[in-house]
Amino acid sequence: MSELVDVIVVGAGAAGLTAARALTAAGREVVVLEARDRVGGRTLNVEVPDSDSYVEAGGMWVGPGQDRVLGLVRELGFTTFPTHDEGANISDFGGRVRRYQGRIPPLGPLALADIGVAQLMLDRSARRIPLHAPWTAPHARDLDSQTFETWLRKHLRTPTGRAFFRLVTQAVWCAEPEDMSALWAQFYIHSGGGLDSLINTTGGAQQDRVVGGTQRLSITMAEELGERVILRAPVTEIDWRDNKVRVRAGRRQWRARHAVVAVPPPLAHRIRFTPDLPAERAQLLQRLPMGWTIKVNAVYDESFWRAQGLSGQANSDRRALGTVFDAGPPGAGPGVLVGFLEATHAQTAARLSPKARRDAVLDDLAAYFGPKARNPVHYFEQDWASEPFSRGCYGAFATPSTLTRFGPELRRPTGPLHWAGTETATRWAGYIDGAIESGHRAAREILTLR
Amino acid sequence: MSELVDVIVVGAGAAGLTAARALTAAGREVVVLEARDRVGGRTLNVEVPDSDSYVEAGGMWVGPGQDRVLGLVRELGFTTFPTHDEGANISDFGGRVRRYQGRIPPLGPLALADIGVAQLMLDRSARRIPLHAPWTAPHARDLDSQTFETWLRKHLRTPTGRAFFRLVTQAVWCAEPEDMSALWAQFYIHSGGGLDSLINTTGGAQQDRVVGGTQRLSITMAEELGERVILRAPVTEIDWRDNKVRVRAGRRQWRARHAVVAVPPPLAHRIRFTPDLPAERAQLLQRLPMGWTIKVNAVYDESFWRAQGLSGQANSDRRALGTVFDAGPPGAGPGVLVGFLEATHAQTAARLSPKARRDAVLDDLAAYFGPKARNPVHYFEQDWASEPFSRGCYGAFATPSTLTRFGPELRRPTGPLHWAGTETATRWAGYIDGAIESGHRAAREILTLR
Repeated sequence: MSELVDVIVVGAGAAGLTAARALTAAGREVVVLEARDRVGGRTLNVEVPDSDSYVEAGGMWVGPGQDRVLGLVRELGFTTFPTHDEGANISDFGGRVRRYQGRIPPLGPLALADIGVAQLMLDRSARRIPLHAPWTAPHARDLDSQTFETWLRKHLRTPTGRAFFRLVTQAVWCAEPEDMSALWAQFYIHSGGGLDSLINTTGGAQQDRVVGGTQRLSITMAEELGERVILRAPVTEIDWRDNKVRVRAGRRQWRARHAVVAVPPPLAHRIRFTPDLPAERAQLLQRLPMGWTIKVNAVYDESFWRAQGLSGQANSDRRALGTVFDAGPPGAGPGVLVGFLEATHAQTAARLSPKARRDAVLDDLAAYFGPKARNPVHYFEQDWASEPFSRGCYGAFATPSTLTRFGPELRRPTGPLHWAGTETATRWAGYIDGAIESGHRAAREILTLR
Repeated sequence: MSELVDVIVVGAGAAGLTAARALTAAGREVVVLEARDRVGGRTLNVEVPDSDSYVEAGGMWVGPGQDRVLGLVRELGFTTFPTHDEGANISDFGGRVRRYQGRIPPLGPLALADIGVAQLMLDRSARRIPLHAPWTAPHARDLDSQTFETWLRKHLRTPTGRAFFRLVTQAVWCAEPEDMSALWAQFYIHSGGGLDSLINTTGGAQQDRVVGGTQRLSITMAEELGERVILRAPVTEIDWRDNKVRVRAGRRQWRARHAVVAVPPPLAHRIRFTPDLPAERAQLLQRLPMGWTIKVNAVYDESFWRAQGLSGQANSDRRALGTVFDAGPPGAGPGVLVGFLEATHAQTAARLSPKARRDAVLDDLAAYFGPKARNPVHYFEQDWASEPFSRGCYGAFATPSTLTRFGPELRRPTGPLHWAGTETATRWAGYIDGAIESGHRAAREILTLR
C-alpha cells in the first residue's frame, strides 16, 4: 500500500527541489511531496491578467555573492537583468521628504555619522561570527543574550539613526529589532556579506532579477524531476522507527531510507513524528518564528516615475509601506512598483479590509511618486503569514539564546531525517541562495552516508 | 459517524477539566479529548514500588493567594499539608557551601544588598503591569524590547547577585534569563504576587502540598465527568468552518458548537485547523516556547537530613541540580528529596545516559546532604521536554516583543474556538491555579455567548 524510494523530500521549494535534483543525479530514487498545488515555496509568479506579463509575489532578487542561485540560473539556461536603479530615490525620514541620488540618504550629518559608526561596529562584529557555528563566536553569548534592539539602542544615539536601523531590520528580516537575537541579526549580516550587501540594489542583494521570475527556477527543476514531484500532498506524519522512513500525505504513504525535511521550522514542528523528535530538536523548532510581510505589486501602463527622474525606490520611517522598488520587467513593458508592509506594519495592515488596505498602500505610493501612483491598472498583494504552508516570510529568525543553546541542532540529522531550508544555511540564510545551499548539503549528507 | 455535543474540550489537564466541569454544571453536553492514557497534564503521581506511597513528577505545590486551586482542593474534599520547612537550608554559592536558617541566604552583605535593591526594583516594576493586559503598561514596550538578562545585567552589580537571579529564573521558569522577555518575567512575577511569593516555601508558592498529590484533583474531576472524558484521543484536526466545530482524534470525530483548546501553545500549533488559524494567532503560537525541566525524586527509607537539622532545601549556582526540596509525604513515611535540573542544566543532562545522569544527580545530593543521599531506595526522573504531549515544563514563556505585538491574541476567541491553559491566565500564569482560572474563563466565554 506504500511506495518505496530511496529518499523522500518534504517540500518543493528551492531547497527541497535542489536536494531532489542532486540525489536523482547521483542515481537515487526520490519523491518530492509538496503540500500546495504548485512548486516554488516562497517564490511565486502571479500572472497579470490580459497580458503576457507577471509580477513576483515572493523572493524576487539575486545579487553578487549568491553563487549558488546564480549558478543554478546559468545551469538551467536562465538569464538575469538588473533591477532598475537609475534616477533619484525618495527618502521620507524624520518628517522630511527628499529626493537623493546614490546610496547615501539625506539624513543630515549627525544621523549619517551615527549610522556610519554603528554600521562599522555591526559589520565588524558580524564578521567575527563563524558562519558554520555562530554559537562559537567569542562574543556569541553576549550577543545572544540580548535583542537586536538592545544592541541598536546601545550603539545608536540619534532618533533618525535608530529609525533607519528599524526600517532596515523590517526590510531585511520582516521583523522588529526587538523580536530577535542580536546574534542572529549579526550572523545573518555576515551570512549575506555585510550590511551594504544586504540592503543595496546595485552591488547588493537586490541587484538583479531572473528573466521569467525566480519561481521558474523551481518550476524547471520540478519539470526535470517529472512524476517524482507530487503536488497537493501535505505531509502530516513521518514515522522514522528502526531507522526507516514512512511518510504519510493524505491517504498516500511512501517508504524510504532517508527523508529531507525542507520546510520552514514552524511547519516542520507541525508534522507528527514517530517517535517524536528528540527534545533538543523539538525545543529548537519552538524558537524559530517566521517574519511577517505583505508584499504588494502595483502595475501601471508605464513606469511614469522614470520619466520624472525617479528610480522607483522609496524608504520611510513613518509610512506603513516603508520600502518600495521598481519591479518592472526587462525591456519595454508595464511599470511595476513593489512595496513591502513589514513586521508590525504587516500585522496592522492585515486587520484592515482589503479595500482599506489597498487605499492605504496607494496613499503611500502617491505620497512617494505623485497622484498617478494612486491608479494602478492591477494591484496584487500577498500576505505570507496567512499562507498555511509558509506561515510567514521571508524566513524564520532566532529569538535570543536560541542559537547558543540550540544552534548545533540546526543541521544535525535526526536518525534518517535530514534538515534543509534556507534557515539552515550558512551563506545567505533567508535567501533563495541559502535554500539551494541547504538542499545541496542535505543531499551530500545522504550521499556520503553510504 | 460523528458524535454531537455542545462543547469539545481538548486536553484533560486542570484547565480543560475545569472548563468541562463548569460547562457540565451549566447543563452543557461536553466531551474532553485527552491525548494520553491519563488525565492531569503536567501533574503526575508516580507510585513508589512495593509501598502505598507515591511521588509527584509534575506540579506539586500550592500556596497562599492561589485561591482557585485552594478552592478546588476544598470543594473536592482534599486537604493540604505543609511542605517540610524546618531546619537549616544549604547554600552553595560563589564556591562556598554554608548552612543557614530562614529566608536569607548567607551570600555576604554586598551581594545581599545588590539582590535586595534589584528585587525592590523588580517587584515595583512588576506591580505596574496590568495583569489583564501587560502590553498596556507604561513601560511595556521598553521591557518587552529586552531580554530578562539585559534587565538583570543593568540592575545587578555583583557576580553573586547575578548568579542568584539566574538560579531564580531557572527555578521559576525552567528557562535562562536570556531566553525570555523582561516584560513576560515581570508580568509573571506580578501574576504570582511578587518575587518572594514565587520563591518562598512558607508564605510562598511552595508552602503546601495536596494530600494524595495534585494529580488527584484532575483524576477526581475526570471521575465526575465519567464517560465524557476520552483518553488516548490525540486531537489532530479541528475544522471550524461555518462557526461549527468538528474535531478528529484518531478515527473518531466529534461535532460541537464550541471548542476549548486547553493544551500548551506549542501543542496547539501542531493541530491542523480548517480554515487555518488567522495569521496573528498563528504567529503568537510560534513565539511561546516551553521551558525545560527534568524533575528528580529520590526516595529514602527515612528523611535522614531532618535528623541532621537540615530542611532538605538546597540551592547552588554551580551544581546542575540547582534547587532541592524535601518532598516527603505527610506524617510518617519515606524520605523524599525532589530536585530540579532546569533550563541549560536539563538540556545538558538529557544528553547523558540514564546511569550517568542519575550518578550526577546523586553526586549533587550527596554534596548537599552527605553520603547517605547517594543511595536512595528508589529514584525517579521525569523529562517533561521529551513528553510528546507536554514538550516542556513548567509552562511556555514569551520571547521578547511577543506580548506587546501579539498579547491581545492570548485569550481572544477565534470564532467558535476558545483558548485555555495556564499560559493564558492573569493570576498565577504557569501554575495549576492559573490553569484553573483559564478553564473557568473559557467556560464563561461560552456560557455568556448564548
